Amino acid sequence: MDADTLRGRPIRLTAFDWVPRFAQGHVRDLRLRWALEETGLPYEVDLVAQGSQRQAENLARQPFGQVPALTIGADTLFETGACVWRIAAASDALLPQAPGDRDDCLAWVFAATDTVEKPIAMLAMLRFFTTDKAAAAGIEPDIQALLHERLGRLSDALGDAPHLVADRFTVADLMMTSVLRDAEAEDLDPFPQLAAYVARHEGRPAFQRALASQLETFERHADRYRRPKP
Amino acid sequence: MDADTLRGRPIRLTAFDWVPRFAQGHVRDLRLRWALEETGLPYEVDLVAQGSQRQAENLARQPFGQVPALTIGADTLFETGACVWRIAAASDALLPQAPGDRDDCLAWVFAATDTVEKPIAMLAMLRFFTTDKAAAAGIEPDIQALLHERLGRLSDALGDAPHLVADRFTVADLMMTSVLRDAEAEDLDPFPQLAAYVARHEGRPAFQRALASQLETFERHADRYRRPKP
Ligand SMILES: N[C@@H](CCC(=O)N[C@@H](CS)C(=O)NCC(=O)O)C(=O)O
Ligand SMILES: N[C@@H](CCC(=O)N[C@@H](CS)C(=O)NCC(=O)O)C(=O)O
Repeated sequence: MDADTLRGRPIRLTAFDWVPRFAQGHVRDLRLRWALEETGLPYEVDLVAQGSQRQAENLARQPFGQVPALTIGADTLFETGACVWRIAAASDALLPQAPGDRDDCLAWVFAATDTVEKPIAMLAMLRFFTTDKAAAAGIEPDIQALLHERLGRLSDALGDAPHLVADRFTVADLMMTSVLRDAEAEDLDPFPQLAAYVARHEGRPAFQRALASQLETFERHADRYRRPKP
Repeated sequence: MDADTLRGRPIRLTAFDWVPRFAQGHVRDLRLRWALEETGLPYEVDLVAQGSQRQAENLARQPFGQVPALTIGADTLFETGACVWRIAAASDALLPQAPGDRDDCLAWVFAATDTVEKPIAMLAMLRFFTTDKAAAAGIEPDIQALLHERLGRLSDALGDAPHLVADRFTVADLMMTSVLRDAEAEDLDPFPQLAAYVARHEGRPAFQRALASQLETFERHADRYRRPKP
């Protein structure tokens, strides 16, 4: 696969028109926007109205009724990991040429979404989506210990290096940064190298453009979702 | 990538010499063994003694101190998803040739490890690894509802089809089956099509060989880990 597998074909992604504040800047279309901004390829965004994601139109492109999905010409793809990999595979901007480096990048993409994100997602679940808050508080320390161990291993693996693979920014850094951003700041505090790693990649102009465009969309539609004042 | 990127290069994977009974038949080297058995490529297993996984030798090949890792010639790779994808990419046995089908396979590999496995992993965490069992019981219904919703979507997406992609067995089925096997049987009960999907793929000779060889290893080393009778 090379750049020609994307260039010249219209690229579209799906994103919510609005999400509650705690999720703003963290919805996963951001990962696709960021990848596309890094490649410089133009793309369009199809907005999914909040609450309509399980309707037939969205289920047809995303079987779990979520965002994001990616459309390239006539092909539609889902799962952030697969979409970002598809974009990366078509661009030197995100993936080195050497097969061994490409394999390592895929390993770190899975390390991000599987090994590192699982405890982060569990903590988010406990904090935002459980009904029994006392029970959630009882579980949190175990999950936090698991996350702490994984972040320690990641920090050791990274060491003083600015990047995970091939001494350059790759899709591995894009996915790992995206996942680490979803941890609470306190969870990263014991690992200053990881906090610096995230901050450095968040500083990339492509990331800033991606973030601004997600937030601008929410801002533009906020009125529609404002609760009537009591 | 094609079959020549594996053929003729020695293939090795890491696996535990023993795990407690609840994990037997579920340790993730099984996914690599299964993929390799499907391709017919020969491979060797390097055993990691239970409890030694965080020592330097294993950390050098798996940065989180876990199993499995995959070695192909001089290259070492980690993360089940990346390893299985690497094996699949080198063999017609697991991946169709059409680029669109390959993209769909990767999407479903991520759907398995990310979307479907997250609630399954949370339930396993609550059942096996939490200290406050009352709190765990308080959280379980929320996670079970999330898993139920995701399995329902998966069941709808699969419908009556025997396979996820391209009307044939692919790496997508291998990973989805592997993930669904780690749910409790009761969790699959409301979805007879998914239960049948798992049972059918578990019946594949390559899976049976992979399972038998993982279990045989544990049996062979069980004496070493037997607790002295009280
Ligand atoms: N594994 C999926 C997860 C997608 C996901 O969690 N999407 C969220 C937004 S970040 C969503 O659509 N949530 C709304 C819902 O589930 O109703 C992926 O990575 O694409
Ligand atoms: N995301 C990793 C997870 C690997 C994993 O969870 N390995 C388990 C066995 S299935 C392990 O080594 N557990 C022992 C430990 O963490 O000490 C992968 O898919 O390779």
